[in-house]
Amino acid sequence: MGLGVGLIGSGYMGKCHALAWTSVATVFPDVGRPGLVALADATPELAREQAEAFGFSRGTGDWRDLISDPAVDVVSIAAPNQFHADMAVAALEAGKHVWCEKPMATSLGDAIRMRDAARRSGKTAILGYNYIQNPIIRHARRLIAEGRIGDVNHIRLEMDEDYMADPTEPFYWKSEERSGYGALDDFAVHPLSLLAVLYGRVTSVVADMAIPYSERPTGDGARRRVENHDIAQALFRTELGASGVLMVNRSAWGRKGRIALQIYGSKGSILYDQERMNELQIYSTEDPTDLQGYRTILAAPPHPPYRQFIPAPGHGLGFNELKVIECHELLKAISGERDSYVIDFERGLEIERTVHAAARSAGSGTWVKIEYVDLP
Amino acid sequence: MGLGVGLIGSGYMGKCHALAWTSVATVFPDVGRPGLVALADATPELAREQAEAFGFSRGTGDWRDLISDPAVDVVSIAAPNQFHADMAVAALEAGKHVWCEKPMATSLGDAIRMRDAARRSGKTAILGYNYIQNPIIRHARRLIAEGRIGDVNHIRLEMDEDYMADPTEPFYWKSEERSGYGALDDFAVHPLSLLAVLYGRVTSVVADMAIPYSERPTGDGARRRVENHDIAQALFRTELGASGVLMVNRSAWGRKGRIALQIYGSKGSILYDQERMNELQIYSTEDPTDLQGYRTILAAPPHPPYRQFIPAPGHGLGFNELKVIECHELLKAISGERDSYVIDFERGLEIERTVHAAARSAGSGTWVKIEYVDLP
Amino acid sequence: MGLGVGLIGSGYMGKCHALAWTSVATVFPDVGRPGLVALADATPELAREQAEAFGFSRGTGDWRDLISDPAVDVVSIAAPNQFHADMAVAALEAGKHVWCEKPMATSLGDAIRMRDAARRSGKTAILGYNYIQNPIIRHARRLIAEGRIGDVNHIRLEMDEDYMADPTEPFYWKSEERSGYGALDDFAVHPLSLLAVLYGRVTSVVADMAIPYSERPTGDGARRRVENHDIAQALFRTELGASGVLMVNRSAWGRKGRIALQIYGSKGSILYDQERMNELQIYSTEDPTDLQGYRTILAAPPHPPYRQFIPAPGHGLGFNELKVIECHELLKAISGERDSYVIDFERGLEIERTVHAAARSAGSGTWVKIEYVDLP
Amino acid sequence: MGLGVGLIGSGYMGKCHALAWTSVATVFPDVGRPGLVALADATPELAREQAEAFGFSRGTGDWRDLISDPAVDVVSIAAPNQFHADMAVAALEAGKHVWCEKPMATSLGDAIRMRDAARRSGKTAILGYNYIQNPIIRHARRLIAEGRIGDVNHIRLEMDEDYMADPTEPFYWKSEERSGYGALDDFAVHPLSLLAVLYGRVTSVVADMAIPYSERPTGDGARRRVENHDIAQALFRTELGASGVLMVNRSAWGRKGRIALQIYGSKGSILYDQERMNELQIYSTEDPTDLQGYRTILAAPPHPPYRQFIPAPGHGLGFNELKVIECHELLKAISGERDSYVIDFERGLEIERTVHAAARSAGSGTWVKIEYVDLP
Repeated sequence: MGLGVGLIGSGYMGKCHALAWTSVATVFPDVGRPGLVALADATPELAREQAEAFGFSRGTGDWRDLISDPAVDVVSIAAPNQFHADMAVAALEAGKHVWCEKPMATSLGDAIRMRDAARRSGKTAILGYNYIQNPIIRHARRLIAEGRIGDVNHIRLEMDEDYMADPTEPFYWKSEERSGYGALDDFAVHPLSLLAVLYGRVTSVVADMAIPYSERPTGDGARRRVENHDIAQALFRTELGASGVLMVNRSAWGRKGRIALQIYGSKGSILYDQERMNELQIYSTEDPTDLQGYRTILAAPPHPPYRQFIPAPGHGLGFNELKVIECHELLKAISGERDSYVIDFERGLEIERTVHAAARSAGSGTWVKIEYVDLP
Repeated sequence: MGLGVGLIGSGYMGKCHALAWTSVATVFPDVGRPGLVALADATPELAREQAEAFGFSRGTGDWRDLISDPAVDVVSIAAPNQFHADMAVAALEAGKHVWCEKPMATSLGDAIRMRDAARRSGKTAILGYNYIQNPIIRHARRLIAEGRIGDVNHIRLEMDEDYMADPTEPFYWKSEERSGYGALDDFAVHPLSLLAVLYGRVTSVVADMAIPYSERPTGDGARRRVENHDIAQALFRTELGASGVLMVNRSAWGRKGRIALQIYGSKGSILYDQERMNELQIYSTEDPTDLQGYRTILAAPPHPPYRQFIPAPGHGLGFNELKVIECHELLKAISGERDSYVIDFERGLEIERTVHAAARSAGSGTWVKIEYVDLP
Repeated sequence: MGLGVGLIGSGYMGKCHALAWTSVATVFPDVGRPGLVALADATPELAREQAEAFGFSRGTGDWRDLISDPAVDVVSIAAPNQFHADMAVAALEAGKHVWCEKPMATSLGDAIRMRDAARRSGKTAILGYNYIQNPIIRHARRLIAEGRIGDVNHIRLEMDEDYMADPTEPFYWKSEERSGYGALDDFAVHPLSLLAVLYGRVTSVVADMAIPYSERPTGDGARRRVENHDIAQALFRTELGASGVLMVNRSAWGRKGRIALQIYGSKGSILYDQERMNELQIYSTEDPTDLQGYRTILAAPPHPPYRQFIPAPGHGLGFNELKVIECHELLKAISGERDSYVIDFERGLEIERTVHAAARSAGSGTWVKIEYVDLP
Repeated sequence: MGLGVGLIGSGYMGKCHALAWTSVATVFPDVGRPGLVALADATPELAREQAEAFGFSRGTGDWRDLISDPAVDVVSIAAPNQFHADMAVAALEAGKHVWCEKPMATSLGDAIRMRDAARRSGKTAILGYNYIQNPIIRHARRLIAEGRIGDVNHIRLEMDEDYMADPTEPFYWKSEERSGYGALDDFAVHPLSLLAVLYGRVTSVVADMAIPYSERPTGDGARRRVENHDIAQALFRTELGASGVLMVNRSAWGRKGRIALQIYGSKGSILYDQERMNELQIYSTEDPTDLQGYRTILAAPPHPPYRQFIPAPGHGLGFNELKVIECHELLKAISGERDSYVIDFERGLEIERTVHAAARSAGSGTWVKIEYVDLP
């Protein structure tokens, strides 16, 4: 039997974690089948109901009870963002491994506290940046690392959805200032996680944020002022030299799950769009001159770990399956494998720093540097 | 606890069934968690190893032993095609429900025998036509049924892959006559299953089959004559009046998992390609004149049961997840729900009849009628 | 000064010819500027008006007058189809070169008569198959000829538009039997012209034709029976061995100018769609294994004669510009250049034979062979 | 007979102007056929040769001679950028109408001088911003103006090509500082011209410029420092309130003629890419909920003036044909029509101001406002 799992939160991402824990050993024969020990949610009743639905042995209304359970080896944190820091720190201090959903925390101070707890504990502590786990993204990473598009010199990153696009939708907590900057922390962390694995770190930014609808209706016929920004964009420079642009918009009508990457190098370029997550486009000057053009590579068995899911090319993985891969990488990290491929709390903190720097820049109208204290 | 499951075969489709049985209750809260009772494979050792890998309680080298296990309520058949008939008939006669992978059988006689056994048993007996379970395909089905593209008058169906496209690949059993007609039975059943749920039945066909490479190398430096047809195409007429074309090719370089549909009606048309399985294209004359054009609809929560997997639109399901939906439909059928959406052995036999009629037509060079004995 | 031009017909295709004659010498510096001598149309008034609009020196209501004008060296025939044969034969017998719009004629006998007149005259006589003139199609032709996709073994051809798709549109002459078979001769000649230059000749067909709307409204509130077929499809075999499918539909809602080609070979495949006429897709097994996928090649200066129009890649040619290229090829043929690239009356007759064979097959329900009397 | 035309410059854009002047009256029956009076180029010999090739009556090595020719009513300026100002001012002062290629001038002072000359002369003076003439862009303009995507709140503009992408290409004048900022003035004016007609004016920018290859080889085996920027990007704010991003890159491998627009509003969004210049994508919340998705509208007769070229939808215009439309708009403007649709020198100057503001911002690292002196 494999590790004992505790899951905190059973909403959408909690279900996604539950599916990953349930499937990981069937998909990947190299890991033991995890034991689904306990599930915590807001009330004991809800927790028990969801524990049964997701196949966990018991439910609890107290997440500290879950963390102190000696049968639990690893804690999945899929609770609301404001609880991430306390839960992760407590779990790490209790000697558990931690798999925490993104964003890391709601303040930079909390993120630093989490990183520090992870350092002290020596346990595995990773963030739920599942988009990097896409086999076709890993293929892009390998192609870039091998120099197949030469030296990267320019990058454009976009993430857009339309769940805030309807101005007639009532005001809700997503538009409150205390929920965060808006699109910047809701979205920017995802393309930045992809940038981190595909290329490298951002060193400075100049950003702008915008509010498409200054007010929204409230339930009672009145209107309330919107307090944060559904749209944000930034110009950036990187440690390795490429210039870039980051654009995020959660009120972009028509976009549903777009994360579009354009990566240009001295010998070619790579394009990707999460809405077609099984496709990668590459232009290569190594092609015969009369055949040059963007080609569309479909996800296939040669792109690990696609083959673990399907032995035939072009049949397509889904969003949830990225979480199964992430779970497998987590298990590899816990077992001490060095080539585990995750965004740990160290890397996660770097992403957070970039987001906060962009927000500061949007306030000041000037370029802001991101100060890294390099990894130990 | 839900039903007891026996799985015969643990290759690719066996793994796909195992994943479905493992995940179905986590995804769909309305069904009980199935018990993974027994797994049968060619040898006891392999069976035990795979039982452990897939989380089944025991493994057996004798599929008849699995079928006679009283703890088994439903049998998943993912064994080689030539065994489907014997296994399905035995399971039905033992009072088990059956979930059998496609193709139904390797001869029309066997398919009839399976259908007859299902009728006699009164048990649920369905085939693994998972492409019909795609939420966006179901959406297409609803749109067509509602008349959103008017009266359908013309249909084109294509299924293409390239696993037989390389003429330098050695001869193997897929090119033997006894393995079947070739592309016709490997592929044609899939688009025909989609035709069955989206529109209706084929009544006559004229077909052609082709052999792109007449010989293939054998291991010993010699060459062996290819005995069946990697390419097939047919013109067809349907019960409801539309004309159509069916094209299948397993040596089509560049195609990986293509199932392309074009459905034309008096008020619009619908396009689909399995390689972009989360997208549906529709042209509607109900659009404002100055905005008419093919629109791309992304799979989303309003397309049941997408929401059970992901509450956000455009995030994408994968091929394996269609099997989870199919498993859920099977469980609904077993529990007696009338709106279960499956290809049962009755409908499956109709699809087989069409394939065999096409093969006869390719031999005779004339149109062949498909005789249906209508459903009871 | 270049050749003297006479143009018969000043409707859409007449205007297209006029534009070609006007532009050809500006685009291609190697030909003399043609003299626009005379334009003939139904009435003298119309002819004079259009002559002035299109920059011709004079207009005439009598096409025989135009043909007998000694200043006219070459005759553009863009008059209704039923007049093609008489006009072309008369022009050739008067010693003029002929550029005749497709379809060649409304009966096979007329087409033979035209071919015979061309043979006797020794003059250049070509048909207006402009789609073959697309630089990206010529690029495809070169790639296929060089063996870049290996031995071609399977071909699919589709041509679809929707100008007959609306069942509420009143009956007009296009639905009369005497206007022809319907989609078969309206459309099929175009993909067949592409097949002729890209690959080779069809040797046998089995076809089906369908009528989506059996009646159409007439102006007076009554309804009239539709007499020909808006939909047609055929399976075919070719001289060089590939099997294929030809599909044409002029009532295909959503399709505007679609001519879709799929050409599969032993080392790759090529895709094309006229609606994106500046793009060619190719899949090549000569690509590195980890980069294989369909690439999109944009029309560019290395694809002759694109550079004559635009020196920058990816800027796009239009439909009308194909006619300018055709005009240039005609002028090359007239001047005796051997590599002129046109469908002359010999080749045009072969295309006509295929269409008539398909129509016969649709009547008989059996395969029909196309008998070629080989070119001299 | 229509106006007398003088053309200065017979390179690529000169040929493009010549084609437009040759074709405009054939395409558009409402304008008189222009007289091709004189062509000026660097030497008398070249000018005479090109005059003959393009059908002009005479050639001259002295552009001032052309401007002083009383038979010349309108002057096409397609000479190198540094001569635009002197030629345009001289032509306007000689009482000629002017059609000047973009960019307007190589300095802001020159652009102002041109604008002032145009004001004084009372003649028509327009710039060659042909992308705005695309019928599908005009359709987008109408849709936006009608509120079909609601209030526009966010815009992204990209223009990318790869003619400077190869680092092994020798240094040439395009990389010299005196040739301009680089991508910023080579490209940015085009998407800004589209922004001007589709939406409105930019009021402030913060920009960054980048040099992908700091040196390039020279012919003699040495290397020379690159003096300007192949890459530029800017965040911007607009007069009407939308935020936006402008990105230009002339070293973007794989891009050939890309001008990509994303325009987001409160009721939908519009996408466009010049590489597929006959397509427009729109997402509209006015669609039925279950059919929402981006639709692709193909250019068609209802999009003026497409019908003047082709009466069938989806057949495609080319890049050069946009110049014919522009020529027609110029002729309408000269004849005093008030709805002529062009970028005149007033509007052109505004675009120049935005470019220069972006360059200043890239130097200072801060936001720069664009000061407009409003149109009289």
